[in-house]
Amino acid sequence: MAQRTNRMFTLASRPKGMPQESDFKLVEAPVPEPADGQCVVKALYVSVDPYMRGRISEAKSYAAPVEIGGVMVGGVVGEVVESKNPRFAVGDIVQGEFGWQEYALTDGRGVRKIDPTIAPISTAIGVLGMPGLTAYFGLLDIGQPKEGETVVVSGAAGAVGSIVGQIAKIKGCRAVGIAGTDEKCKYLVDELGFDAAFNYKTTDNNVEKLKELCPQGIDVYFDNVGGEITDAVIPLLNVKARMSICGQISQYNLQKQETGPRWLWALIVKQARAEGFLVFQFADKFQQGAVEMAGWIKDGKLKFREDIVEGFENLPKAFIGMLQGDNTGKRLVKV
Amino acid sequence: MAQRTNRMFTLASRPKGMPQESDFKLVEAPVPEPADGQCVVKALYVSVDPYMRGRISEAKSYAAPVEIGGVMVGGVVGEVVESKNPRFAVGDIVQGEFGWQEYALTDGRGVRKIDPTIAPISTAIGVLGMPGLTAYFGLLDIGQPKEGETVVVSGAAGAVGSIVGQIAKIKGCRAVGIAGTDEKCKYLVDELGFDAAFNYKTTDNNVEKLKELCPQGIDVYFDNVGGEITDAVIPLLNVKARMSICGQISQYNLQKQETGPRWLWALIVKQARAEGFLVFQFADKFQQGAVEMAGWIKDGKLKFREDIVEGFENLPKAFIGMLQGDNTGKRLVKV
Repeated sequence: MAQRTNRMFTLASRPKGMPQESDFKLVEAPVPEPADGQCVVKALYVSVDPYMRGRISEAKSYAAPVEIGGVMVGGVVGEVVESKNPRFAVGDIVQGEFGWQEYALTDGRGVRKIDPTIAPISTAIGVLGMPGLTAYFGLLDIGQPKEGETVVVSGAAGAVGSIVGQIAKIKGCRAVGIAGTDEKCKYLVDELGFDAAFNYKTTDNNVEKLKELCPQGIDVYFDNVGGEITDAVIPLLNVKARMSICGQISQYNLQKQETGPRWLWALIVKQARAEGFLVFQFADKFQQGAVEMAGWIKDGKLKFREDIVEGFENLPKAFIGMLQGDNTGKRLVKV
Repeated sequence: MAQRTNRMFTLASRPKGMPQESDFKLVEAPVPEPADGQCVVKALYVSVDPYMRGRISEAKSYAAPVEIGGVMVGGVVGEVVESKNPRFAVGDIVQGEFGWQEYALTDGRGVRKIDPTIAPISTAIGVLGMPGLTAYFGLLDIGQPKEGETVVVSGAAGAVGSIVGQIAKIKGCRAVGIAGTDEKCKYLVDELGFDAAFNYKTTDNNVEKLKELCPQGIDVYFDNVGGEITDAVIPLLNVKARMSICGQISQYNLQKQETGPRWLWALIVKQARAEGFLVFQFADKFQQGAVEMAGWIKDGKLKFREDIVEGFENLPKAFIGMLQGDNTGKRLVKV
C-alpha cells in the first residue's frame, strides 16, 4: 500500500487572549505502518470545544497543557482504514481522543466503536459524546433539579447548554436560557422547547430580565459562561439553590484575570452551593447516560443541532469562531 | 412585688460601614407582669455575634432586619425570676433569643432549660450553643473532613473558628488557622492544638504562607471571613475540596460592595464546591451535636475560651470590638 500522508495541526504559540489562526500550524508527515495491536483511523469529524482553550494555555489545570509543537487535542469520529488489532476491523467507525489530525495510529486504548444505526456517527462527539454527557451529569448529578423548579443555563445555545435546557424540561422544570443572539434565543424556545430565553447582549439589565423570566426564582443554575452573566443570576438564587459550574467561557480569553463583585455571602443567606465538575468524574456512568439520551432522541424528546464546518484546514477558524459564539448547537469539523 | 425596670438596647440608626455606639440607644421601660403561661427571665449573659451585623442592615437576608427602634436581637442566658408557666420554675437557668435587654417576658417558646452541672451556663450561647453548633455542623456536615485531610479555617480565633480547628483535629485532620494577631495564633497552636496558624495582617503573601503550612494542599476550607483571605485559599484547593461558607466578616462593614478576582474556574478544575449554610438548617440535630461536644469537653479534647465583657451598658462597645477582631474565643457580655 502506498504510504499515506498525514496532516495535523500543531500548537505554534500559546495564544494571548483570543486565539489566532497563526497560533496553529498545519504540518504534514507520513502515516506510520501499524505494528501488531495497532490500527490506523482516518478522521471523519473532528471536535472543537471550549475546554480546548484551557489546554493550550500554560496555566496549571486538570491536565497537562498541549506542548508547543504538539498535536492539538480533540475528540474525533473516524473510520478504521488499517488494522492489526483484533478488536477493530477495517471499516469500523470509532471515536477516540485522536486530536486535530487526519490519520491517527492507535493501540485502541480509550477508543470505542460507534454503532451508526443508533444515531448519526457525528453525535459520538456531540449529544451522545462528551458534550452531551457533560450536560447530562452536570445537570442531573450536580444540579439535581426537581420537578417544578426553575433551571437557568448560560451558553444555552451551545453544545452543552442546548442539551441542559431540554433535560430540564424532560425532568419537569422551567428552563430559561441565556444566549448571545436573538436567533439563538428563538431556536431555544421555538425548536427546543425552552420556556424562555434572552439575549444578554441586547438586554440592559440582566437581573431584571431574569426576574421577569424566573418569577419563582432560580433553583438550579448551569453555568457555561461566568462573568457578568453569573453575577446577574446570584441575587435570584432560591434557598438551597445549586450552581453547577461547567465552564467560564467569558473568562478564557482574558489576558488579565477579571474582577467582579464578591458574592459568597449570597451562598450563606440562601444556604446554596456552587460546585464545579469535569465530565470525566462520571466516566463509570457514561454508558448509562448515553443510553438514556439515545432513548430521548428516539422518542423525540431531545433534539440536537450540529454546526458543521467543512474542511480539515478550517479547524483553527472553526475553533476560534466557537469561542466567539458563532455556533448554534455542537460545532464540529467535517474532514 | 415592686415593678422592675427593664433596660434594653434598641436600634437607633442603620450603621453605615462599621457600627458606632450611637447606632444603639439605651432605653428603660417597666417590666410587665407575666400573664398565665408566661415567665420573666433576667439576663445573666448576652451574646454578641457577627451575624448581628446582617440583622441591622437593610439588605434582604434570611430573616427580617431589626427595625429602627426595635430591641436588638441576640441570644441570652438568664434566670427565671417570675413564672406563670408550668415548664419553668423561679431559679431555672434558661437560654433564649431574648435580645439585648435585662429582662425578657416570654411564653417559653424556643426557650430551653440549661443544666448548670454539665458546663458553665455561659456555654449555652457559646461552645454548646449557636456558635459551637455552627462550627460542628458547618465543618462535619458541609465540610465533610476525612482523616488525613487538611482543614483551613479563617477567623480561627473566634467563637466558631476556634471550635472548627479542634473538631478537625479530633477527626484526624491537619488544622491550620488564619487569625489577625500573633497572640491569637499562639493561642491556637499552643493551647488549642492547631497544627499551624498565621497572622494574615503581618504576612506579605498569604498564598505562599498557606503553601508552606499546607504542604498537601487544602481539602476543607471553613470560611468565616471572605475577601482577600479566601482569595488566597482558592489556588491551593485540592481536587474535590469543599468550602464551607459560614461568614464573610471582612465584607459586612463595607459601604460599597467589594470586587475581587473571579475564581469559579477553580471550582471546575478542582471539581470542588463552595456551600453556604445557616446553623438553623441543622436544628433537628442540635441535641446530638451538643451532646457530642459536651463529651469532648469532658474528655479534655475540646477547649474553649470566653471573652467576657462586664456590664450590660457595654453591649454596643463589645459588639463593635468583636466585629473589629478584638476577641479571642467567644465574646459575650456579663450583665
